[in-house]
This record gives sequence, structure tokens and C-alpha cells, in this order.
Amino acid sequence: MTVERAERSVVGKSFPRLDAVAKATGSAAYTADLKLPRMLHGKILRSPLPHARILNVDLEGARRLPGVKAVVCGRDTLGVKYGILSTRPHTLDEEGLAVEKVRYVGDEVAAVAAVDKETAQRAVDLIRVDYEEIPAVFDPFEAMKEGAPRIHDVDRNVGMEVNWAVGDVEAGFAQSDHVREDTFTTQAQAHATIETHAALASYEPSGKLTLWSTTQSPYVLTKNLARTLGLREGDVRVIKPHLGGGFGAKHQMLSLDFTAAFLSMRTGRPVKIVYGRDEEFCTTLQRHPMNLTLKTGVKRDGALVAKACVNVADSGAYNSHGVLIIGRAGAQLSLVYRVPNFRYQGYLVYTNQPMGGAFRGFGNLQARFADESQMDLLAADLGIDPVEIRLRNARKPDEVTPHGWKVTSCGLSECIREAADRIGWEYKRGKLPLGRGVGLGTGAYYSGSRYVHDTSGAYVRLREDGSISLITGAPDIGQGSDTALAQIAAEEIGVRLEDVHVTSADSELAPVDEGAFASRVTFVAGNAVKLAAADARRQLVEKAADLLEVHPEDLRVRDGEVHVAGNPELGMTVAEAVTAIMKADGGGNILGRGNYVPDVEKLHPETGAGNISGAYSFGAQAAEVEVNPRTGRVNVLRMTAAIDCGRPLNPMAVEGQMEGSIAMGLGWALSEDFVRVEGRTLNSSFLDYHIPRVENVPPMDVIIVETEDPLGPFGAKGMSEGSMLPTAPAVVNAVEDAIGVRITDLPVTPEKILRALEAQRRKRRSGS
Amino acid sequence: MTVERAERSVVGKSFPRLDAVAKATGSAAYTADLKLPRMLHGKILRSPLPHARILNVDLEGARRLPGVKAVVCGRDTLGVKYGILSTRPHTLDEEGLAVEKVRYVGDEVAAVAAVDKETAQRAVDLIRVDYEEIPAVFDPFEAMKEGAPRIHDVDRNVGMEVNWAVGDVEAGFAQSDHVREDTFTTQAQAHATIETHAALASYEPSGKLTLWSTTQSPYVLTKNLARTLGLREGDVRVIKPHLGGGFGAKHQMLSLDFTAAFLSMRTGRPVKIVYGRDEEFCTTLQRHPMNLTLKTGVKRDGALVAKACVNVADSGAYNSHGVLIIGRAGAQLSLVYRVPNFRYQGYLVYTNQPMGGAFRGFGNLQARFADESQMDLLAADLGIDPVEIRLRNARKPDEVTPHGWKVTSCGLSECIREAADRIGWEYKRGKLPLGRGVGLGTGAYYSGSRYVHDTSGAYVRLREDGSISLITGAPDIGQGSDTALAQIAAEEIGVRLEDVHVTSADSELAPVDEGAFASRVTFVAGNAVKLAAADARRQLVEKAADLLEVHPEDLRVRDGEVHVAGNPELGMTVAEAVTAIMKADGGGNILGRGNYVPDVEKLHPETGAGNISGAYSFGAQAAEVEVNPRTGRVNVLRMTAAIDCGRPLNPMAVEGQMEGSIAMGLGWALSEDFVRVEGRTLNSSFLDYHIPRVENVPPMDVIIVETEDPLGPFGAKGMSEGSMLPTAPAVVNAVEDAIGVRITDLPVTPEKILRALEAQRRKRRSGS
Repeated sequence: MTVERAERSVVGKSFPRLDAVAKATGSAAYTADLKLPRMLHGKILRSPLPHARILNVDLEGARRLPGVKAVVCGRDTLGVKYGILSTRPHTLDEEGLAVEKVRYVGDEVAAVAAVDKETAQRAVDLIRVDYEEIPAVFDPFEAMKEGAPRIHDVDRNVGMEVNWAVGDVEAGFAQSDHVREDTFTTQAQAHATIETHAALASYEPSGKLTLWSTTQSPYVLTKNLARTLGLREGDVRVIKPHLGGGFGAKHQMLSLDFTAAFLSMRTGRPVKIVYGRDEEFCTTLQRHPMNLTLKTGVKRDGALVAKACVNVADSGAYNSHGVLIIGRAGAQLSLVYRVPNFRYQGYLVYTNQPMGGAFRGFGNLQARFADESQMDLLAADLGIDPVEIRLRNARKPDEVTPHGWKVTSCGLSECIREAADRIGWEYKRGKLPLGRGVGLGTGAYYSGSRYVHDTSGAYVRLREDGSISLITGAPDIGQGSDTALAQIAAEEIGVRLEDVHVTSADSELAPVDEGAFASRVTFVAGNAVKLAAADARRQLVEKAADLLEVHPEDLRVRDGEVHVAGNPELGMTVAEAVTAIMKADGGGNILGRGNYVPDVEKLHPETGAGNISGAYSFGAQAAEVEVNPRTGRVNVLRMTAAIDCGRPLNPMAVEGQMEGSIAMGLGWALSEDFVRVEGRTLNSSFLDYHIPRVENVPPMDVIIVETEDPLGPFGAKGMSEGSMLPTAPAVVNAVEDAIGVRITDLPVTPEKILRALEAQRRKRRSGS
Repeated sequence: MTVERAERSVVGKSFPRLDAVAKATGSAAYTADLKLPRMLHGKILRSPLPHARILNVDLEGARRLPGVKAVVCGRDTLGVKYGILSTRPHTLDEEGLAVEKVRYVGDEVAAVAAVDKETAQRAVDLIRVDYEEIPAVFDPFEAMKEGAPRIHDVDRNVGMEVNWAVGDVEAGFAQSDHVREDTFTTQAQAHATIETHAALASYEPSGKLTLWSTTQSPYVLTKNLARTLGLREGDVRVIKPHLGGGFGAKHQMLSLDFTAAFLSMRTGRPVKIVYGRDEEFCTTLQRHPMNLTLKTGVKRDGALVAKACVNVADSGAYNSHGVLIIGRAGAQLSLVYRVPNFRYQGYLVYTNQPMGGAFRGFGNLQARFADESQMDLLAADLGIDPVEIRLRNARKPDEVTPHGWKVTSCGLSECIREAADRIGWEYKRGKLPLGRGVGLGTGAYYSGSRYVHDTSGAYVRLREDGSISLITGAPDIGQGSDTALAQIAAEEIGVRLEDVHVTSADSELAPVDEGAFASRVTFVAGNAVKLAAADARRQLVEKAADLLEVHPEDLRVRDGEVHVAGNPELGMTVAEAVTAIMKADGGGNILGRGNYVPDVEKLHPETGAGNISGAYSFGAQAAEVEVNPRTGRVNVLRMTAAIDCGRPLNPMAVEGQMEGSIAMGLGWALSEDFVRVEGRTLNSSFLDYHIPRVENVPPMDVIIVETEDPLGPFGAKGMSEGSMLPTAPAVVNAVEDAIGVRITDLPVTPEKILRALEAQRRKRRSGS
């Protein structure tokens, strides 16, 4: 009883978000807005040193301050370490509050709960910590050297090492007509969510802990809270209120979640901690700076033969998601373009910098920047048009990558052509006046990826007014997933979008959903919702058929009406049907449930191979830029962006994601960077750290290249991360087209442009 | 895979309530405890007159008071009437705020929302209402007379009339050896819940209304709010926080629910209304005073041949649940004892008194008082022992009552014997010194009853720590149903009680459950939970069998362990199993769902016949009393109480219900009554209205007579209402045994005793 595409009335259409009114009117409650009776406010004391042993923490002065209800430090906690890979305990290195050592400027040392924020801050200032400073290291290459300060108990400060090889790379280089090796470096980036992190914990005497948190995964947070606090998972409930952006920053547990909960357990009162922007920028997470050396061999026609990459990533003080990112960055390099021989060595290296973590693109962004830059260089070497060399190597539908990723639907070539056509590639590339240029980049991403598992579940209940109650564990983090999932449920059952009421992201109420990451929600949670809705629809149709005395197969449900196919007169509204079923003998509730686990593979420990996702999305973007040779300033005039996300569920939402991705990609490409001296962040506000403003965002031409994914819900795939990948390379490649210099070190600042232009002039002078 | 009784490890055992710690430590949040940001406080202006037309309501003075955010009266509302039988619109007579008329002292006229309670009250005092007083009537017999004031638009002020006959009653009387007719009257009773009514409404600009309310049925309240406020049901969410007693008082929507919601819609801010004790006593609901004339014919051996009853009930100003109670009081009269010929005429009559409503016993209490009193009189007439005449007529298992109620399990005779034995009937009845006596009463009750439907649903989810999340719509109103339902889920799956986390009574999240009334939760919601748990268990066992490579039939789940039958070594914990299943290919969530609708019948419109419930509970109680002939004071020395509630799920909880029922029954029998003058309640506090105190409650001997109900979850039936039925007749019959006078008019006050003793003396004097 699948809904045919021609008949679809909800998916594939643009709808405003379900939360639009609440957010626009200010009635939407974010975690920081929440208040509970007797609530206390928490503040955290952070390390002023990048690397030191904690000799003594004197909490007495703070405890004596009136209004202070609890003062704690790491030694008061169980000292249980946490991290990402619970299956590999040696990688777990984070502490809610540091016990023995601090490892970066901002590391959490102690915390206070008091009757108001001001008192809490005054108490924090009264805590005295004796440190024994240890030499620090701020560069991953230095950190890997013999004799470097040892940040954790691992050799050469390598938190995770990946060595993967497929085919025979050296033979591949030997067979190549042309081989080149380049090194590309990328910088840190702040997630810059408009909402900072916040957590409100309430521990009850019954032993039950409830935490409202800015989390992308109530499920994972529940597990980490339980482990580190010594509670049972079932006694911990995590609820995600409205959320103002995540981008990966809110996927893992941070100190405030643990500390708010711990302080609530200590005081028996609710405790709220809200990070300020400076804490957000200096002490949460950031995109990993990476150093990628890429060696690629090609045939004369541009066909890729072999690719080898060495990637050194600055993990900062802790592993966080770096343990996965370091691998993903590599595997991604064989997804976009066909390359039979491939080798990847990745090193996630501890330094005494703030820690890197999950961030939209998850390592793929850095790798794509390197790969797409080098593709342009290879094209130039071979005298092939950059679009052409990409099309010759582009991944095609129904192929398997060297890493065993099974690509089914794939619109990459169409995306490349669309993005190029719309930017006017044919008559602009290499043909614009000096200072103007166009460039193109591509990207690809999975739709969910297997870690320990990749599960989503949903409940769908039909109600007597014809509405439906959908319960999903998937968190809407601002990306609009509640709306997309509601569309899926509405379409599958045959009601209208406004008939759907979504409850999401409550670890106690909702079925397990791993969370909002890996661009998984549309695909994985979407399939779970579709199954639950189909289950409810089947019950509706069977019972309505009884009432109407017809065969279930003859019934159609659409736009809130149940009627006999071809006879719209014979039927009733869904509301009437559910009401009648509720009253009928043997009737009652119509309760659907759905569980979805993509049919994916565990990764091979040696090669890293194994299909990690049920679907892969593709995209391409082209940029037209203007470079001022006197100021070095890059002005992006226009972006065209084509995405294959299967069948878009809500085109307006897809366009919104694309536009946001491009803006964020432009920031990374051109302006965002942290200024740090000896581990101290000097630009910790939006005044000093420059995300694009409205005037920096160019006109964007967003093109949805539709494919029909065979496994996606109504043919849809994920798209929230992949849409950011092509932006920076498109801009950098366009800069090269505009002024003939290539920047291999992000961001593309005016200083670097001017320096490169000067080098170019010197070279020309010496050459001519 | 039903759990055999011998193997049961959770049901049938006494456990403290799941909410015990929260309630004992004060952390349990009741509705009145809730606070929301920007919350306003609401107060209601009530009519000072028992019957009047509203000519004009001047809200201006109130509106001008600083701090007042909204002032409304009935004419501002949609004026949609509500009530109980939505299928019979003419019976709907209540208004959130009165529009045209007020009908009792306390009727709601206008309301205010203000920044604090004091301001709201001051504003209420500034509202000016012009009334045109109408003659009022306070007695149902007066109200039925020609020319009586017409309170609603119905003839003779009869809101509901029931005329049911089965067999040939007149022929039955003719065939009888002895016929007697007596009239019994009963008084009003306050529910006297320790928690008064409260409602907190929050209306959001998106059009969504959330109401936290002291409700026994979020489902029914959602419907009534939607209808009267002009909202869709799906846009109304009703949540029941911890609740401090219901007893029927909190089953229907009252003005505060509507008014808090309406004021929140007007102001765009949350509004809370909490009733004071005086409002609770004077303006909510009460037990219907009834006047029952009972004519019964018996054979010489005591066998009942025919019974006819005329019942006139004082409905007060509105119908409320009286429309159902008036019928139930009658049908009940043929449940306890076999009687082939039966006629019942019931009249629910409007007066200008506070309205009657649902109350533990639901009309059965009044009818049982009459019937059990008359059984003693008949026994005396025939010279048969009161226990003996009851046993001769007692309902037996697998019988059908004249009303078509299909009794399956029935332990009535055993209950009668147990209660009598334990009180020492054989050597006390008629044998104690003057002033001491024993008496016995019986009762029977359904386990849920069909109104429009009688549905419960549940979701059960297994979690990786071996705990389970149960979502049920059934509200725990203090009776402990969350615990009972958790026991059912734990037993069915094979985990421990502490492994179960219950979320209940949220109209949006939970499957439809009609609510906590009609003693339905254990039986109906319990069966739904059992089905949901069985569904989850099936999935657990099937998937665990895959993991263990055994047949599912060979697996047993018990005490949180899954193992091969007969081989406890071969297995794992439920936590391990669920965790492994979560990670397994094709694994993921274990989601159970259950829906239960008892296989019952629609009532015949003429005879009222039709099986209304899936199970019936029975009980008997005996009282030993001491009557002080000088003061007229009745001192209950001891109560023995036997109950057949099938297999008790939690014996301690059953005993607690029994003890509470008996205390409430003693209050009704001996001390509770409203003092009213022209519709004005003079005793509106616990100082003047006397519920039993600890020192008034005698030692109680509670006996659980176990039967195995074929349809009940683990053999259980409902018991919360039936357990109150025998108390008052047992006491009244004991008083007669003690001093030889029979009180037919409740409560048995010292004044009535003294008057009766005086009459007895006069009679003896004149007779001798």
C-alpha cells in the first residue's frame, strides 16, 4: 500500500516548520528558559593553564559564601571517564570535572551551585587551586615527537590511528601517467550555534534524575550520565527542549550536563548551568584542524588510478568524536570519485588546545577541501577542464566504493553539471577578467552511519479528531526534523501535515533513536516513522473496511479521508473512522510502532571497509568570486548549489539547509579562525570571531537534483552535512581562476591572498 | 507463554507504591505546586443566589485594577454546554461560566486572571452582577411538582428518567409468601479529597493548549475542553501530575479547567486556578442524596421472588454523572442477590442545590444501603439469620443477572462467611448485651463499565539496562494504579518491579484510556498493559533465542534473566539481551503495544440490559458497634471486611484501599452531611464537616477471598469502589442488633438514635 509519487499530497511539498510560530513569537522554551521551583544556578571553575597537575583544590572559602549550596571538584566525583567509543574503553578520556590533571585552558576543575548566578560566580572566584604546571604542546606534529609532553597515557600522543589500504597504491602510482602530491591545512572552526549550551538537572529523592539539555542525542547523553554518575540508565531521563542549532557541538556530553546533574544530586534541588558565549567558544568543541598530504596518480585522460593520504588531526586535549572523524575523513576520499587503489593513514593527536569534536561534515569537509583543490591542480596539469575531470571520475549509481560503501541512488554527475551550468561555467571559467573567477567543488555524505548500532523507533497513534500523535526519539535541533518526520507520518497514513503532533527526543518516553548526527534523521528515523505510520494505517484500513463492509485493499486514505478507491462518495473522514473504531466492539486504540535499523555492515578492523549507511547523498557547488588585488579581499558574488538528497521531503527545508550550509562553508573558507596564544583563545566573542553576516552571504541558486533512493522514506536521503562540503573548495578554486594563485591553507584571508600575489609577482619577475 | 501462578514473582506480592518516596519526601509535584514563567493566577466569581437570571455583568471596575490581565464572564465564551453523555446532547447542561442563569449558590459567573492571587480576588470583588432572582426549589419531590420553578428546559425538572423491568414483578409479588416495602433516604457526601481541585493552563500562539489538571481522565477532559473552547482535540493536551485523591470528584471537567484555559487563551500567559476548601465543598460535586422505596417479595425460606424500587435522586443544579448513576443504582440491585423479577424506576431531579456527581460507589452505595437494610428486615420478618438469608440468595459464579450482567468469578458467599466468622457472628449476633451488636452488609461492583466505549491502550519498551518504559493513559489518582500496572508489566515480561518506569495520564503521549473510574484501571488498563508487555516479551524472546541459538519456546524470562528452561546456566540478563539485540543486525528497539476493550454489550434502551463489564467483584463486611443510649453516639468497635477482587495484584494495596473505603463508608454512615439553608452550605471546612479522624477508625480485619477471574490480568478484578458498599449497611444493621432500632435515614447521628430510642420507648410503653 505504498503511496505512489503522483498521489503524494504531503511529502515533496514545501511547508513552514511546525515550530515556526512558537519560535517566531518567542513562546518556544529553550533549555535556558526553563525554571523549576527551588532551582539553583551552577557555575564552573576552569583551568587557567594549558597543562598542569592538580595538587589541591580548596573549596572552603566558596562554601562559606552565603547563598552557596554546594561546591564540588573532580575528587568528589566517581572519576568515571567517558567519551565516544564505549566499546573501546581505552579511548574514553573525558571527565565531568578534572581529577588529576588539566589539559587545556578551560578544562573544568570545580563547580558551584548557588541561589543565583552572581553568587555562584563569586563562589567560583573564591575557590583556590594549587597547580603544578607541566610543559604543554600546541601543535600535533610537535606532540608526536619523542620527548613531547605526554597529555594522556598513550604513545606519541596519538589518541587514534587509522591505517587502511585497498588495492595496491604503489602499483597504482607506477601505472599512472601523472602523479602529484600536495599538502593542505585547515583551521579550527566554532559551531557558533546561536543558542549556547545549557543544562537543567533535577534529581529526586526517589533516585530519578531528569536532565533538560541542549543535546542532539538524549539517548547517548542518558548513557553517559548514568555511567559517570553511577545511576541506572532507566533512572536517568533526558529531555531536549527547543534547540537553537547543534551542528555536532551538542552531540556528546559536556561538563555542564554532568556537573548540573552532580550538583543536583548533592543539593537535592534543581540546578541549571548555561554557558556564556566565551565558554562556548573556548571550552566546548571545534572543528579539527587537519594537515592532509594527498598524493594522487592519474591517467592522461584524468582517470584516477591511485590515491594516498596522510592526515594529521589536532584533537586538542581529548578524543571526543575525533576517534571516528579521523577514519571518516579517509573513507570519504574514495566516495566521490572512483579510485581503485587507495591508502589512508590518519592520526588523531592530542595537544593542549581546546578539543575538537563532531561538526557538520565530520572530517569530510577537510578531506574534500584537499581533494577538490587537488582535482583542480590535476586538471590543470593535464589540461582538462575541472568539470570534465570530475565528470570522468564521478561516482555512479549502484557502485561500491573501495571501502565497501554501497552506493545506490547517486545524482553526482547531474549535480556537477547543474552547478556548473547555473554559474555559467562554459563562458566564465578561465574567461573572466583578472580578479574574477569561477570554481567548483563536490561532496558526498552518508545518511546515518553505524557506530554501535544505528537504530530509530517510533510510535504513531491515531486520534478521534483525525489527528495523529507521533513519538520519536529523533531530536529536532533546529534542522526541522520534527516537520519532516510529521510529513512522512502524514503521507503514509493519508492525513494532512497539520494533523500531526510530534513529541520528540525524550529518552524515557520515546523509543531509542541514536540522535541527530551523521545526517541520519531523515533516512533512519524517517524510515522508523514510516513503518510506524504504515502499521497504524493498516489497522485503520482493516477496521474501517469492517465498518464500511468493503475489502481493505479497496480503501484509500488521503487528505484525512478514507474512501473506496474510485468512489470518493463511499467513505468517511479519518476522524469519523477512528471515532467509530474506538466505539466498535473489539475496536479501541489504533497504535502503530516502527523500528528501523539500516542493513549495514560492521567495519573491517584492518581495512575499515564495510557499508556504513543505507544511502549516500551527493552534491556540487560552484562559486563566482571577485578578488580585490589591492586588499586581498575575496567577495563571493554568487553560489550555485545542486544537491541529490533523493526525493526532497520538504523542498523549502532542503533549500534552507543548503543556504545555511553554504553560509557556514563560506565562513570556514574565508573568515573563521581562532586566534590562540599558548592555548589561550583570544577571540571568544562574535565581535572577534567572524561568522558571515547577512551582507557576506551572496545570492544562492539552490538546485535539487531528484533521485529516488530505493531505501529512503519516500525516496529521501539525508542532506544536512553533505551540503556544506563543496562550498570551501568551490571558493578556493574560484579564487585560483580569478587571480591565478592557489591557497592551500584555510581560511583564505586577505593576508594570504596578498602574500600569494606577491609571491606570484616575484616568481613572474624572476621567471620572465 | 502465560506465567503460571506458582512461578509468579511480582504480582500477588505486597510492594510499597512506586510514588511512595516522592510523596513521603515532598518532592512529588501536585498541580497546585506547578509554576510556569509569566504565570497568572485565576479566581472565579460565584453566584450568591440559588436561582437567578443574569441581567448584566459589569467587568470594568475589575479590569481597571492594576495587575489584572483579563476579566471574563459567560457571555465572552462560546457558551457551549457540556456534560457526560455526548451521545445525548439534550443532557448536556453545564457551562464553564454561566451565560443566562445561575442555578445554585456557587454557580460560576465571571473570572479574573491577575499577577497574583490577592489581586485576582480583589478584582473578583469589583465585578458587579445584576441578577433577577427566580424562585428556587431545594427538594427533588417539590421540584417534580406541577408549577415548581423550572431549573433547566425539562419537564418536572427530571434530568434523566430510567424505567427498567425484567420478568413480571407484580406476578412475583403475588407468588411471594411475604412482601414488604420500606423507604430509605441518604444524604450528600463530600469527596473530601485531601488535594483540592487545581488547573494550570498554558495556551501557546501556535494554537496549542496544555492543561495540567487534577483529573481522573485526561482523555475525557481533553474532549470537553476542545468542545467548549472551540479547539481541535489534538491541539489540547491534558497532563495529570501527582494527584491527592479523586473518588469521582475529579472525573468530569469543572469550571476551573475551562476557565483557566479560557483565561490563558485571552491573556497568552499561563493561568493557574486552585480551589480553596470552601469552593471544593460548596461548588464541586457531591454524592447524590437519594430516596429509595424498595418493595421486595420473598418465599418463606427467604428466596427473593420480586423486587421493585423507586429512586428519586437529588441531582442539584446540573446532571453531571447523575445521568448514569441513576441507572447504575438500579442495575446494581439485581447483582448481589438472585431475583428473577425486577423493576426499577429512577428519577434524577434538578434542584437548586450544589450538583451531585460521580462518587466512589456511583449510586450503588445508596442502593446497597437500602437493600441490605431491607434484607435484615426481611430476615427478621421470616425468622432467618441475616447471614443465612444472604447466603441463600447470594450470586454464584457463572450466572447472568436480570440486567444481562455476566458474572464469571464470584466469591460472594465466601466473603459473607469470612466477614461473619471473623466478627464472631455465631456467638455475637443477637447475643451481645444491650448496646452492643453486630451487623453485616454486602456489595458488588463492576470492573470498568461501558459508556461510549471502555478502551485502554499501552506502550511497553524494553531498555538496555533491563528496565522497561511503560506508557499508559490510566491515571494514578492516589489509588496506586501506576504500581499495579508496573507489576503487571514486570510479571508478564519477567523483570523486577523496580525495573519498570511508568509514564501515565498524558492525553497526547499515551494511548487512549478512558480514565480512573468505574473501578476499571486494574482490569481494563491492566489487560492493555499485559498485552503490551506480552508483545514486548515475545519480541525479546524471539530475538534472544536467535542470539542464544535456541528455540523461543525453550526460553524463560524471570527476575530480569533470560535462560533456557531447566538450564539456568544457559542464558543472560534481560539487560544483556536487550543490549545485544539493540546492536544485532535487524535488531533495534523492542516496542510492545497493547489495546484492550472488554467484550461487553451496548445497553438495551428499554430494559437497560446488557453486560457492561468484563468482571464483577464481590465483598461483605461486618461491624461490631457499641451504642451509648444516653448520648446516642455510635462507636464502631471493629470491622471485618472480605473482598473477592480475583487474584490481588498487590495485597498491601488492596488492604489499603479496603481500609480507606471503610473509613469513608463510616463517615457516610455516621457523621458526614452538609448543613444547608436555602441552598447555602453552612459547613464548608473540615472543622464543621466531619470525616472520620484516626481515632474514629476502628481496628479492621481485611480478608482477601481469592478467586481467579478468567479475564482479569493475572486473575485480578477491580476493587476500589465495591469495597465501600457494605460498610454503612453493616453499621446500621449492627446498630439495630445493639439497640433494636433501625435507622433508615443516613447518617446515623446521635440525634436520630436518641429520637428512635425515644420512639421505641414510647411504643413499648403504649404496647405493653
